[in-house]
Order: sequence, then C-alpha cells, then structure tokens
Amino acid sequence: MSPEEFRRHGRAMVDWIADYWERVEELPVRSRAQPGELRAALPAEAPEQGESFEAMMADVDELILPGITHWQSPNFFAYFPANSSPPAVLGELLSAGLGVQGMLWSTSPACTELETHVLDWLVGMLGLPAKFRSAGPGGGVIQDTASSSTLCALLAARERAVACVPEGSGGAAELADLVYYCSDQAHSSVEKAARIAGVAADRLRVLASDHDRRLAAATLRAAVEADRAAGLRPAFLCATVGTTSSNAIDPVAALGEVCAEHGLWLHVDAAMSGTAALCPELRWIHDGLERADSYCFNPHKWMFTNFDCDCFWVADRGPLLAALSILPEYLRNQASESGAVIDYRDWHVPLGRRFRALKLWFVIRSYGVAGLQAAVRGHVALAREFAAWVRDDPDWEVVGEPPLNLVCFRRRGGDDANERILEAVNAAGRVFLTHTKLDGRYTLRMSIGQTRTERRHVERAWKELRRAAAEL
Amino acid sequence: MSPEEFRRHGRAMVDWIADYWERVEELPVRSRAQPGELRAALPAEAPEQGESFEAMMADVDELILPGITHWQSPNFFAYFPANSSPPAVLGELLSAGLGVQGMLWSTSPACTELETHVLDWLVGMLGLPAKFRSAGPGGGVIQDTASSSTLCALLAARERAVACVPEGSGGAAELADLVYYCSDQAHSSVEKAARIAGVAADRLRVLASDHDRRLAAATLRAAVEADRAAGLRPAFLCATVGTTSSNAIDPVAALGEVCAEHGLWLHVDAAMSGTAALCPELRWIHDGLERADSYCFNPHKWMFTNFDCDCFWVADRGPLLAALSILPEYLRNQASESGAVIDYRDWHVPLGRRFRALKLWFVIRSYGVAGLQAAVRGHVALAREFAAWVRDDPDWEVVGEPPLNLVCFRRRGGDDANERILEAVNAAGRVFLTHTKLDGRYTLRMSIGQTRTERRHVERAWKELRRAAAEL
Repeated sequence: MSPEEFRRHGRAMVDWIADYWERVEELPVRSRAQPGELRAALPAEAPEQGESFEAMMADVDELILPGITHWQSPNFFAYFPANSSPPAVLGELLSAGLGVQGMLWSTSPACTELETHVLDWLVGMLGLPAKFRSAGPGGGVIQDTASSSTLCALLAARERAVACVPEGSGGAAELADLVYYCSDQAHSSVEKAARIAGVAADRLRVLASDHDRRLAAATLRAAVEADRAAGLRPAFLCATVGTTSSNAIDPVAALGEVCAEHGLWLHVDAAMSGTAALCPELRWIHDGLERADSYCFNPHKWMFTNFDCDCFWVADRGPLLAALSILPEYLRNQASESGAVIDYRDWHVPLGRRFRALKLWFVIRSYGVAGLQAAVRGHVALAREFAAWVRDDPDWEVVGEPPLNLVCFRRRGGDDANERILEAVNAAGRVFLTHTKLDGRYTLRMSIGQTRTERRHVERAWKELRRAAAEL
Repeated sequence: MSPEEFRRHGRAMVDWIADYWERVEELPVRSRAQPGELRAALPAEAPEQGESFEAMMADVDELILPGITHWQSPNFFAYFPANSSPPAVLGELLSAGLGVQGMLWSTSPACTELETHVLDWLVGMLGLPAKFRSAGPGGGVIQDTASSSTLCALLAARERAVACVPEGSGGAAELADLVYYCSDQAHSSVEKAARIAGVAADRLRVLASDHDRRLAAATLRAAVEADRAAGLRPAFLCATVGTTSSNAIDPVAALGEVCAEHGLWLHVDAAMSGTAALCPELRWIHDGLERADSYCFNPHKWMFTNFDCDCFWVADRGPLLAALSILPEYLRNQASESGAVIDYRDWHVPLGRRFRALKLWFVIRSYGVAGLQAAVRGHVALAREFAAWVRDDPDWEVVGEPPLNLVCFRRRGGDDANERILEAVNAAGRVFLTHTKLDGRYTLRMSIGQTRTERRHVERAWKELRRAAAEL
C-alpha cells in the first residue's frame, strides 16, 4: 500500500468509523453470531497474493460486523463500560503512525516524559495524594489493565517485604511466609496475580465482606493478627474502590490504618470508579488514600480513552523497580546510567511499550477537566434516576445503595425470572445488560458509562426490562 | 469533538501520518532531546476547558516530534526493528473505532474467532508444527510482547510440573524444587518472568553458551542431570531462535531431545527471527520445533504489524488455562459454559483485550504471503551485502556468521574506538545503531528490518560508519 493509497484508504476508514458511531445505536447490541460462524466463512489458508483494501473492508462489513458486540453503543449497559471518544481514537492513530518504542527514556524521550507528565496532571485532576507525583520517590505509569497493576503492586509488596531478591532456599522460605489479603468482592485479578506470583493458595486470604459488600477493617485486623500469631508475615492488601459486582467501596481509611500498623502494602484498585474523583463532590470515594502504597484506575473504562489505558501510581517506586529491573548490555545507554530519567520498562511486565500517553493527553485536552466532569456527572445522574424508577415500581427492587453509576436491581420473584428477563432483553438486541450474584441471588446490573448514552437510552432500557418482565 | 469534527480531524491526521512517513527519512533518527526538556515545555496542570485539535497538533509538531526517536525511519538500524505498514495502522485504527473487548468469546465473537483463525493461518505460513493449530488441544493467541509469552510459558510449565494449583505448604515445597533453564544469551525477560513467578534465584539456571553463543544440548543435559541427582525437578527451558545480542539460533532439535527425555517444557522464543520462516529456504531456523511445547514470534518486530502483536502458541492449552483461569460470576455466560468457544482472557495476564487480530489480518491480506516473503528476503539480502562490505574492509571485522538480518561487527582497534564511532554516527543523526558485548568486547549491531529500508540507506550507514572511524 503506497503512501497515496494510505491517504485514500485512511480517509475512507475515518469515514467508516464516523458512520459506524452514527449508526451503532441501531445495531443489535449483543452479537448474534454462533460459535464457529465467522471461521466457517473465512478461507482456510492465507492468501498468496495481496488483496485490495476494498475487499478487506467488504469482509469487515459482511463478516466481522455481525460478530461484534457493540461496546460503543449507547445501549450498552453490560459489565463495565470500555468507553472511548474521537480524540482518543485520533491519539491511538497518531501513536500507531509514529510507531515508537518507549521501553527506555532514550528510545523516545517524548513517549516517557509525556506519560509522566499526564500522570502527574491526573494526580491533580483526581485529587490524589501528592506522594504519587513523580517529583518525589513516587510516580505513575500506564499499564495495559488493572490486572497488570494488581500484579505489579503485589510484586512490589513482596519485594518490600523480603527486601531483596531471594537468594537460596532461605529466601524461598521467607517468601513462603508472606500472606496476601483481599475481600471476596475483590476483582478476580487478585487471585490471578497471586497464582502468577507463585503464592500458595493458603497464603492468599479472601476475606468475607460485610453486609454492604465492603471489607471491614475489623475483619482484616483479625485475619492479620491471627496470621502474625501463627508466625506468618502479612504483606499485602488489595482494597477496592468500586467492586466489579456491585460497585462497593471499601473503607480505605480504616483499612489503611491496619495496613500501616502491621506493615502491609496497601494497593487500591479503583479501576472502574476512580474516574468519579474528577468531581470534587465524589472524591469521598478516595477517603484515606493517603495510606495507600499504590493505586490504579482505568481511563479506558470510564474516562473516554480507548483500551488499553490503566493508570498506576506508586508512592515509592523503589520496591517496584527492585522487583522488575534487569539491565542487559544491549539496553545500556548514557541517559539511563545518569539516573536522570525514567525507564518505564522496569515498571511492568512487558519490555516494549507503545506511546499510549498521546491518547490520554488528547482526551484531557479535548474535553478539558470541566468537560470530563460534566460527562461523569451526567452518567451518575442517569444512574440515580434509573434507581429511582426501579424503586418506584413495586415489582422491582434496587439492591444496595448505588454509589455512582452502577445500579444493581432485581425483579421481585426469584432467580429464574430475572435470568429469563435478562436473556429476553439481550436477545431482542435493543439493549445489553449483564448479571451478578449478590447475597446468593441472581441480580441484574445497569452500568451507565458509555460515551454516547443519553437519558432516552436509559429510558428505553427500563421500558425493555419491564416489557420482558410483563411477557414472562 | 462531534462526528463531523472527527471526520475532518481524522483526515488531517491521516495526512499528517502520510506526510510523516514521507519525510521521516530526513529527520535525525535518534532524538536530541535532553532529560526534562519536554516536561519543561508543558503546562504544569491540565486545562480546565477543552482545547482545539489544531492546538494539540501544533504541540505535536513543536514539542513531541523533537522528542521522538524515529523507529519508522529507514535509517533506523538499532535494537531490533519495530516495523509497521499502512494496512497495520488502518487495522489499529479500525480496532480503536470499534472499541470492543475480547476477554470472552461472547463479548465479541469476531474478536476471538478472527484471532484464532489468523494464528492458524500463520502456522501454515511459517511451516510451524501442526500441533499448534487450534483444531486439536493446542492453539494460538496474541500477547502484547514476547516477555509476556515467556512468562505464560513458564507458568504453564510450572502448572504442568506440579499438576495442580498448590494447596498448602506441601504444594509450596513442591514448587520450590522446580528448576528453570535458559542460556546466558536468552532475553532478559526469562529472568524477569522467573522473578515475577517467585522462582528463587538459585532455581533459574543461566547456562553458559558455546563459542557460537548457542546453548549446547550437552550443557543442558549436564545441568539437568546434576539437578536431578540433587533431588530437584527440571521443569522448563526457554530456547531462543535469534538472540537479541547476536541473533544466535539455539539447536532446538537437540535441546528438544533433552527436554523430552527429562520432561521439561520447551518454550522457543523466536520473537525477532521467527518471521524469517515465511521463506521456505530459511525454515531451518525452526529445525526441531516439533519438540516445543510453546513458541512465539513478534509480527510487531519484523512482520510489518505495529506494536503490540506477539503471537504465542501452545501444543496443549490445558496447563496454560489451568494456570490462568478464574471465573467469577459476573463473567459467566452460556457460550463459555458450553465449552465450544475460546475465552482468551485465560491465555494471558490481562483480563481485557482489544481486537489486535484486525491489523494482523489486514497486513497478511494486503501484502499476501508472497509480498511478505519478498520483503523478508530483501532485508536478509541487504544484511548479507552489508556483511560482505565489512569483511572486504581490512579495518573492520564481522563477528560470527550473521544468519539472517542482524550483522554484528567491529572496527579493529578496541572497545573505545567502537564506542566513539557509535556515538559519533548516532549524534550526527543520519543513522541510528546500537551495540552489544560479544566475547566481552564492545560490538556494533546492524539490524536491518525497517519497512522502508532500501539498499541506499544501508550504503549510507556504511559510509557514515567509515567516515566516523576515519575522523577518530
């Protein structure tokens, strides 16, 4: 494809995407594809000769699109959002066009410095503790996902606890005494991270949450004290601000006291909900964050930045770098050796990294802080309105108090009815919601965070749900 | 930014990128930015109100571009390439526009099925063992980087060795007996993966390579036998096809015999060099791959697919899934429970994943297999020609026999001279090369794999190097 062809096809692709965004609302939200359907339509072997862009785009329309579940539809209320925006997509495009590697500062200084800078901006934008700014021993980095941040936090905690890379079997024994904690409402990535790190199953304590699905400080304290009494070494807690199931917000301040008292690394996972802190009136979700050793939230969920973009901060980068730094000769360079620069390869699992800060920078500058706040307030207001409608209908109930933009609710009448309602609305295709279990009962989730979702979409969703219930 | 503004700005961005590619050859390859220079030019806090696209792009030109090291320049001969192509960038753009999550088959069936399908295509394209195709117990997945593939391979190996998630301290003891192997020329990600996985430093054997910088089977055998004699359990070998330092190719067939005999998981890391196997005459690099349990190569290095895109295959997905699967209620769905589909979230560290198969599909279809082969042959031929020029000059020497597209070489006369030559050519900015150490000596690396590199660029690089040497 020549440069001139790229210009032509690139314009066509931009128009295709703009058209898609304009019509996505009319498409069935959840794909109706059957397993194997797409594969059956594709040639068994790769083409020997090159094909035209037009042929490829015809296949996108005819074969790919029916296999898409439309996360960018304003009628998407499932899981958590993975929202996006025009400036984010332009930033991603620019990043792809520049095609730089940011593994070291020296492999493209702008890639590292813009990232550090924008993550410092976000400390101010979200009102995070100043210790997360890069000016001191702390700082921020973009990870692919909150799962990776959790893993890195756990590794840094382990490193700090053992204070050195284990040498010999003494080190291994010391490692085996460390204990890690989360609640039964924490994201599955905590268990995944522990498994990856080689933590034995009986060294990860999944603690029972309280009736509000929060981890009570007393529960943590009791577990930590019992483990210490047994000669073990409590090392790490992952607290959650906005659990995946129900958006429950752990009492970070009280948990932080226990962590401080017993020397645990406190990681706060605010993957979904952290964005709310853009609005001063919602910053209570971060009460106590001064106690945290690390923190993350995902602009790729609710801050209009296309996946992947998880922002992760540490108060002290020392243990993280100690856990992950390895410097082979072929990466040695003067800038790294001067100590004056950040080399982000030491801040996460992968070595290579693309220029993801561009899209975040574009989003923040294009919306402005005020624009982002307005969008977040709009979603939260819609969720409150939806919850009010559900409460006003005697056949339905809201489960718990929705703190932000996720409403958990049920039709009165048992799991089976709710499961059938969900399947009916999703099969009809005009909206897409998913479920969870709360108090052992099948519960519907209305997650409001798509970029283009307006009041009329939420109204329609509620109408669809009630219609499906009436038709049971 | 409205849809109409997106169309307008999107076209401008496409043109900006096309212009960039047309002029990148004239820009200093290595950025001349000083530490902190970009940050000093940026506002300390995020803007309160939104800014225009034009203001953002002006900053890209004035502030970002001087901080870029131009990986897409045809004069980039440093590290390994991270090449790209117009169809790849269009695929990335489409992926960003669709904005789907592929964590489960059901969250966008096309995202999973196209990935499985294209990775099956690649098995045929590279002549990989049929056991890596998805029709049987094996299959392929896109990871971000080879570092992540190495980690996943190591975790799968550990899982297979211990056969279950460890329960209690018995499991921990069993884990502590496992031993992992690589050569002293393996990528730093092997050591990083071992550290992440909690492998004690004395359970990773970094074995001495032979005079050709390959890991001899006899060396592995001796180490494995010694460990077994000491009551330990050899579990994993990472062999390399194309080491980062010198492109050395481990004797996979002979190593595979040792692995088979003693039950080690054999992972083959062909991150850089695997692409060569597109050409039947270069497939000897994979001799013995039938013995491998897992394999990866990076289309984002040398197959014209912008970062990130590492392709990773396993012969048996069982241990990988056993190591990484965790299914919370909120992700349960009928398709997953039917067992008829692949859920790629269980194949890697992150949960979320974007639609990376699109760009790979676009690249393969746009070039065709024949087009990709021609490009690879072109790079290999240029490397051979460059090596001949170096050999023909009595003041210079080629180090080792370049198997593919990386030439290691030196000016006769000591480390200091070579270091000064390298710094001089890189400072001049017309080319960019990096170094390594081979046999303890400072050695220059000429890595030829950029999409737009032609003979004239290689000629100029040679001229620059000789001029710098003459000016010493």
